Amino acid sequence: MKTETTIQGLAGSLQPARTARKIIGFVPTMGNLHQGHLNLVREARKLCDVVVVSIFVNPIQFGPNEDFDNYPRTLDQDSQLLADVGCDIIFAPSVEQMYGKQPRLTNISVSEITNDLCGKQRPGHFDGVAVVVTKLFNIVQPNYAFFGQKDFQQLAVIRQLVRDLNIPLEVIGVPIARAEDGLALSSRNGYLTEEQRKIAPSIFQNLKHAAAELQQGTDLTEVLANIKTSLTEAGLVVDYVEARTPQLQGIDQFNQDLVLFVAAKLGTTRLIDNLQVKHTAS
Amino acid sequence: MKTETTIQGLAGSLQPARTARKIIGFVPTMGNLHQGHLNLVREARKLCDVVVVSIFVNPIQFGPNEDFDNYPRTLDQDSQLLADVGCDIIFAPSVEQMYGKQPRLTNISVSEITNDLCGKQRPGHFDGVAVVVTKLFNIVQPNYAFFGQKDFQQLAVIRQLVRDLNIPLEVIGVPIARAEDGLALSSRNGYLTEEQRKIAPSIFQNLKHAAAELQQGTDLTEVLANIKTSLTEAGLVVDYVEARTPQLQGIDQFNQDLVLFVAAKLGTTRLIDNLQVKHTAS
Repeated sequence: MKTETTIQGLAGSLQPARTARKIIGFVPTMGNLHQGHLNLVREARKLCDVVVVSIFVNPIQFGPNEDFDNYPRTLDQDSQLLADVGCDIIFAPSVEQMYGKQPRLTNISVSEITNDLCGKQRPGHFDGVAVVVTKLFNIVQPNYAFFGQKDFQQLAVIRQLVRDLNIPLEVIGVPIARAEDGLALSSRNGYLTEEQRKIAPSIFQNLKHAAAELQQGTDLTEVLANIKTSLTEAGLVVDYVEARTPQLQGIDQFNQDLVLFVAAKLGTTRLIDNLQVKHTAS
Repeated sequence: MKTETTIQGLAGSLQPARTARKIIGFVPTMGNLHQGHLNLVREARKLCDVVVVSIFVNPIQFGPNEDFDNYPRTLDQDSQLLADVGCDIIFAPSVEQMYGKQPRLTNISVSEITNDLCGKQRPGHFDGVAVVVTKLFNIVQPNYAFFGQKDFQQLAVIRQLVRDLNIPLEVIGVPIARAEDGLALSSRNGYLTEEQRKIAPSIFQNLKHAAAELQQGTDLTEVLANIKTSLTEAGLVVDYVEARTPQLQGIDQFNQDLVLFVAAKLGTTRLIDNLQVKHTAS
């Protein structure tokens, strides 16, 4: 496994694979890897000849009061984990390597599907994601790119971006990895105190319970309200509890497949999760 | 020479060149080709193994009151001209082929350098250019892309876009092609009446005269005012007469290389031109 910190170095490392027209898989991450990320690499390993993982904490997708400075940076530990799951190349550039010394004047925005859910609380977040992902796609030029379904809205935004701009690759969404108690794995879980960590699984428990209620015929509005009440009682500060179609369109009753979305804070740590609920005609 | 009208067809036609790792050159156009376009193809022919020319009148770069519907579409004539200068593949997609049936949600904007000159009179124009050029770059995946210096601001916007998004190609700017009387060649010249066509060369005559005045020490502000007066007297309605650095920064005296820009209307036809003026330390 090689680690490259420059665009030119990465180009050199990928040159033999490109010349041989090998299938290149790409997993963009912000590091501090957990089994969720490693599952993405395992999926990439199955489909591709060469697997590139980027580790880059992207400043432009963080808001001014968010956790950019404190975001955990654990490159040595990440490298060990990536070597174990068969990553071929780590791309770990500096901010200057990615954004240069000249000011960036180009912005990319994806409208409509970024207006609510996480987009509402994090203005500019998805623009920052769209820009860095487009840059990374152009730098790595992969055949496949792998993203987790935990960031469901991000995955939808990237699929839209790829379709709208004819970016020549296929996006693969990979299911959420969870702790044994159901908590969706996230680098931000590391911020939780022991006490908060015990409360956090209530998010997934409530999502599962809500899915069961929907299947039993409880009204969608009531189900969403129940999640909100229950999470608040458990000690979380709810940002949103919403239902959407898998394409992120609004939906007010359970008459087709839908996705339940939760974002909630425990102390200063913001957690998100989602659960897809299949509708079967009765 | 082949003509492809679909993205998939083009991909098929380019596959052998890609497999053989040949150098691909790309000239994006809106058709109705003149010697200016053909010069771009000739430059591409010199540097590249395979030359692709796109012909696509891009709806999203036209304003609601602009000439999208009337823009001249002359594919048969264009094909003949392109065959004569050694184009290998024409890519002439429909609007639906380029933009699909689903709504496009992704926008790209380049700030600052699009705020004035043509950007001021044509809001959204450069966003439309940025989106279509990014799409075409992703579809063709060329090594080199060729643009005329007549659309100097467009060329600067595309260079910025390519740098900011790490688009893996090199942009080549090609000097303006002119009629014998100095008029910059443009598809829109075809809109001019015989009378207007006689007046139009005064744009370039004034630019040349202005460059000489600058070299003789006349103040930049005065030189710009003189161009404006002279063009108005000749019967043109001036949109702007401006000086900028080659990087499109503002400049108020001739103390470094600069570019003089003119946009003016003859009847309903909007003409643009520019002239680079070298500064030599005395």
